[in-house]
Amino acid sequence: MPWELSHGDIERIAIGAGILGTGGGGNPYRGMVRAQLQLEEGYRLTVIRLDELPDDALVVPLGGMGAPTIGLEKIGRGDEGRVAVQALESYLGVRIAATVPVEIGGANSFAPMIAAAQLGLPTVDADGMGRAFPEASMITYYFDGVAPSPVVMVDCQHRKFIIENVEDTRMLERVSRQICVQLGGSAMVADAPMTAKRLRETAIPGTITLAHRVGDAVLGAQQRGDDPVAAVCAVTAGRVLFSGKVTDLDRRVERGYNFGRLTLAGFGDWQGSTATIDLQNEFLICRVDGQIVAIIPDLITLVDSERGTPVTTEVVRYGLRVTVLGIPAPEQLTTERALQYVGPQAFGYDEPYIPLA
Amino acid sequence: MPWELSHGDIERIAIGAGILGTGGGGNPYRGMVRAQLQLEEGYRLTVIRLDELPDDALVVPLGGMGAPTIGLEKIGRGDEGRVAVQALESYLGVRIAATVPVEIGGANSFAPMIAAAQLGLPTVDADGMGRAFPEASMITYYFDGVAPSPVVMVDCQHRKFIIENVEDTRMLERVSRQICVQLGGSAMVADAPMTAKRLRETAIPGTITLAHRVGDAVLGAQQRGDDPVAAVCAVTAGRVLFSGKVTDLDRRVERGYNFGRLTLAGFGDWQGSTATIDLQNEFLICRVDGQIVAIIPDLITLVDSERGTPVTTEVVRYGLRVTVLGIPAPEQLTTERALQYVGPQAFGYDEPYIPLA
Repeated sequence: MPWELSHGDIERIAIGAGILGTGGGGNPYRGMVRAQLQLEEGYRLTVIRLDELPDDALVVPLGGMGAPTIGLEKIGRGDEGRVAVQALESYLGVRIAATVPVEIGGANSFAPMIAAAQLGLPTVDADGMGRAFPEASMITYYFDGVAPSPVVMVDCQHRKFIIENVEDTRMLERVSRQICVQLGGSAMVADAPMTAKRLRETAIPGTITLAHRVGDAVLGAQQRGDDPVAAVCAVTAGRVLFSGKVTDLDRRVERGYNFGRLTLAGFGDWQGSTATIDLQNEFLICRVDGQIVAIIPDLITLVDSERGTPVTTEVVRYGLRVTVLGIPAPEQLTTERALQYVGPQAFGYDEPYIPLA
Repeated sequence: MPWELSHGDIERIAIGAGILGTGGGGNPYRGMVRAQLQLEEGYRLTVIRLDELPDDALVVPLGGMGAPTIGLEKIGRGDEGRVAVQALESYLGVRIAATVPVEIGGANSFAPMIAAAQLGLPTVDADGMGRAFPEASMITYYFDGVAPSPVVMVDCQHRKFIIENVEDTRMLERVSRQICVQLGGSAMVADAPMTAKRLRETAIPGTITLAHRVGDAVLGAQQRGDDPVAAVCAVTAGRVLFSGKVTDLDRRVERGYNFGRLTLAGFGDWQGSTATIDLQNEFLICRVDGQIVAIIPDLITLVDSERGTPVTTEVVRYGLRVTVLGIPAPEQLTTERALQYVGPQAFGYDEPYIPLA
């Protein structure tokens, strides 16, 4: 039974996807406004379950690429996703049945819904990360080594790039990132359509619904005067890793990504302690007094300590009072094969992956 | 009347295109061998005049992109051009009538002939530079501001990039160069097909024939025991700018190009003088004792002082005895508009263009 999103649903998904997005995936507020605008323009944002499509239906994974700080300033045109999906249809001579997020994080939960809405199509309730990651090689759909070729990139000037026969996802990441940089640092990327059957084998299911539940928990707790942070932990099986004030922020654009490090001074139980969090578009590793307390692929996410709302890498700033949450990664990210793509070594760390749980 | 090239024709064109290529355009010897190999495989390399096509026949400009030193080491597969032309045909839903060089220089005179031969098509006796230049914005076909979109890039692994709606040739150069770098530094590039009518308005005509005449003059003089350098000057209206020995060579790969500077110690009339030649894939500016004696877009080319054969930027080395020739640029390169794309300022020089003649 397709689920038609209301303004309130979009608000909840924006909050939840912002939290699951571990700091990245594009600004959640920007994503929310753009999605709500679709409703006002008469489009329908429709979500369907993974099992509601026939095996051979073709689904296009879609998401925005770029450094979050750039995405915040460089406002898209709004139809890049539609143009990219249509380019794939035309190039391959196929009909697309639905879109699906490559990542649930931030605005990228809405990008495939907006493209689908403009085409009269639904979006599948699933994604390829269960969070956000910075690189195109970090998508569960492609962990078996099958690259998403042909890929289409479209920017706000409708400049269009079709990439075919690039069979290695890391190579695809390198070359598409270079194109993205030349386009000014952001672009919409649609991967080759895959069958619903393959999507069922490789996707992390139900993550749009999960984002909605997380957002609903935050708003519900706010309304009841309960602790929104505790409400997030209850829904996500997460726990508080640290709470404090941002005392330093080193954030720069490098090779088309945001890189940097946050430093936090502890409050309450963490009075006197210091936390650091490394970031590459997303938060990667959290240390408290020099000891690692969480590391990719587990989710490290920042929320406003009072309101429980997400604090993403492009808006975090000196003086903010934030709580750092650790949320166990979906099991699809922690297999031996998956860790080759999304474990600490894939980000250049020597430290092993030690699960949160 | 189509002209079917023989082994000897190919040898002559290789020498002539190497000389007209001003140091770049891809290694002439490599180009010759590859072209002759086509004949041995049963293909026909056919050249037609600009006026032998109907107005609406579609012609694809084609050439290799990359630093000459990389092209020398990274051997192509041999069918990249055919794949690129076929990708354009399929993407646009059109039939191609012929190919045409983007530049006459070096191996790039043969690239469109090889692609055409494999498709059973002819190549037009013309090009877009009358020489070689390092950047995609430096092609006469596009001096009116109409960019060659869609562009197809193909590499030796048949990795394929279709670039559409990039309407500025300098932007196209930046982004395609970045792709080229990621592909290992070389790729075959086919621009959107243009009509024969437009080609007649924008091309430099007869440059394959000119290259053949230059090569024939060199071989003829060698056989007769005459001075091959003087023979080149007679055919090209060129003159000797300097003669001497290479005493220093600074040549590096930077941003996907070869950059560098040659220093020569004079012989004969130039005894006691020093020449320097700057290069970006091609030779750009020649100074003798600090005074500019030739500057782009005029042709500055190096030939072996004894044999008259071209010495290109990827093979020039310490100790070679070379003669520096200056050849006046075709008039299509010296208009006010053309100089915006191929004059000294387009290469970052403050010096004005002072014609050789």
